[in-house]
Amino acid sequence: MEFIRRLRVPPIDDTLDAALHQKIDQKTKPLGALGQLERLAFQVARIQGSMTPTLKNPYILVFAGDHGVAKSGVSAYPQDVTWQMVHNFLQGGAAINVFARQHNISMRVIDAGVNHEFEDHPQLVKGKIGPGTANFLEQPAMSEELCEKALRLGAAQVDAIAEEGCNVLGFGEMGIGNTSSASMLMSYLLDVPLEHCVGRGTGLSDEQFEHKVKLLQQAAEKYPNLKSPIDILQTFAGFEIVAMVGGILRAAQNRMLVLIDGFIATAAYLAAYKLAPAIGEYAIFCHRSMEQGHQHMLEALKADPILKMDLRLGEGTGCALAYPLLQSSLNFFNEMASFADAGVSEKS
Amino acid sequence: MEFIRRLRVPPIDDTLDAALHQKIDQKTKPLGALGQLERLAFQVARIQGSMTPTLKNPYILVFAGDHGVAKSGVSAYPQDVTWQMVHNFLQGGAAINVFARQHNISMRVIDAGVNHEFEDHPQLVKGKIGPGTANFLEQPAMSEELCEKALRLGAAQVDAIAEEGCNVLGFGEMGIGNTSSASMLMSYLLDVPLEHCVGRGTGLSDEQFEHKVKLLQQAAEKYPNLKSPIDILQTFAGFEIVAMVGGILRAAQNRMLVLIDGFIATAAYLAAYKLAPAIGEYAIFCHRSMEQGHQHMLEALKADPILKMDLRLGEGTGCALAYPLLQSSLNFFNEMASFADAGVSEKS
Repeated sequence: MEFIRRLRVPPIDDTLDAALHQKIDQKTKPLGALGQLERLAFQVARIQGSMTPTLKNPYILVFAGDHGVAKSGVSAYPQDVTWQMVHNFLQGGAAINVFARQHNISMRVIDAGVNHEFEDHPQLVKGKIGPGTANFLEQPAMSEELCEKALRLGAAQVDAIAEEGCNVLGFGEMGIGNTSSASMLMSYLLDVPLEHCVGRGTGLSDEQFEHKVKLLQQAAEKYPNLKSPIDILQTFAGFEIVAMVGGILRAAQNRMLVLIDGFIATAAYLAAYKLAPAIGEYAIFCHRSMEQGHQHMLEALKADPILKMDLRLGEGTGCALAYPLLQSSLNFFNEMASFADAGVSEKS
Repeated sequence: MEFIRRLRVPPIDDTLDAALHQKIDQKTKPLGALGQLERLAFQVARIQGSMTPTLKNPYILVFAGDHGVAKSGVSAYPQDVTWQMVHNFLQGGAAINVFARQHNISMRVIDAGVNHEFEDHPQLVKGKIGPGTANFLEQPAMSEELCEKALRLGAAQVDAIAEEGCNVLGFGEMGIGNTSSASMLMSYLLDVPLEHCVGRGTGLSDEQFEHKVKLLQQAAEKYPNLKSPIDILQTFAGFEIVAMVGGILRAAQNRMLVLIDGFIATAAYLAAYKLAPAIGEYAIFCHRSMEQGHQHMLEALKADPILKMDLRLGEGTGCALAYPLLQSSLNFFNEMASFADAGVSEKS
């Protein structure tokens, strides 16, 4: 696939590392006392190759798509909720709108494959690859051609905001049925049993949850020999997930900070990571979801998520909520006085 | 003690509870999907008795004091760092300055007992109870009279900012040696063995840590029969800690949101809680510190801290860093569309 053959993620230079550690350690605080903020500041400064890193023109991209598998009853909500929520995003009434507004984060909604025709709207990108995927219980979700198209869609959106001067972006999604899709991706990409990967999504009852597990087990039996990330994506992903994969890869290629939201965004990240492990240095995991599969995925990735607040909403909400803490990490790094500046005695 | 006899914390009315839950559950998101933000919104709305709660004129109060026990070598830093850091706060160069500025939180520094004479400064309250406490390895840290004076100092500062329209305030501190003080308070107030309460503070080596544990065990043997919170405070606390106790109690009396920072602030909270358990409904625990005693204390209090970022700095930094998330909890509660508003289908 052409898109994959041309992947080149720039390696991160370590020439500043010692100076960065020294700058952090000279701040007027006990060594290491800002914990995860110190690790974030170090990571961001390395990505930017700068002693004075900054966040510029932040964006949340919300990718939306419908899933054929939703027709088999794997979600607590009807499929129409996908387009209704896209409409809600465009009206400014959803959780992600509230949190993005709070932190002056721009937002763009990408229709990667919603089963609905939307009116024009300045925040909407009409990128529909198709009116939803095929039901993977019956056939692969999409062809290789459509998979590549979805990868390119995500990459093009990231390039567009990079041209606006954005250097940090969060990946969010909306798609009824997409926890099922993400569970399948996780199980195949990490080669772990399906039972570690399936959760209650938007809030299934015991009976609905058992139904979901049974259906996904059937799907796993139907496709016993998938190995390559692209084959796994074509078989189980949604168009919104594949577009996120393309976007994540391109963001790292562009040396942008890649903010990863919850279970579905992390499944997309996982596919991107399998395609190009070098993106690992660009990724910031914004929260640890209540969806059990997410916790296993984060452990497998040795990720250090910023928030642990029992969120499980998607839409990029974890990215928007974690954003001020990312900003705090750079603020302490850029603004705090050193022991020498402030005339404070060092450790005795 | 007069201050204690007049304690009256208003009980929280539950008449709005059902309406608050309904408002949260009607937002366009799966039930419970905003996790801890939903619990925070509910708590704040109850405290304010309002369907449209708001945060007004937020403050961080940083209480500073010196500790006689610091002379026995329980800290990695020399005692002068207390006044030097107060100076740093007033110059705007410390971590708490950076994070308070980021979120437009006003800051006031209260000299409750620092061994240094400061110049006047608009952000400094000269409330010195004494030039540091006595060394509790030799005698109780303070008399009952000074303890009451410190309680009143904290309460008066809280009243002053309440008059400025503040309804949310964070409690922070600075005092070389005060993790030792907090460990003793914790051990006596919770009746748990000292080894669960002692940590490495600002970063002790193995040898220094063993020395600290040994000294604190000697102190515990010296005062075998302390039971009342006031006796325990007089014996082991610092003036900054007692002032925080008075401030926390008064903030709850004033129906303000009480933001609690790390290990030392939580030890002060614990004493306040033992004096008036009704303050529990007003407290918001901002983070879970790396200091091991803090984790045990939070468990004993059944607290649900907002951040888990391996911080261990004090100064109120956890409060300032958690503040935007508290704001997010009210923003979703006040601004998000309901299913009916947005025309989104509910659970099938």
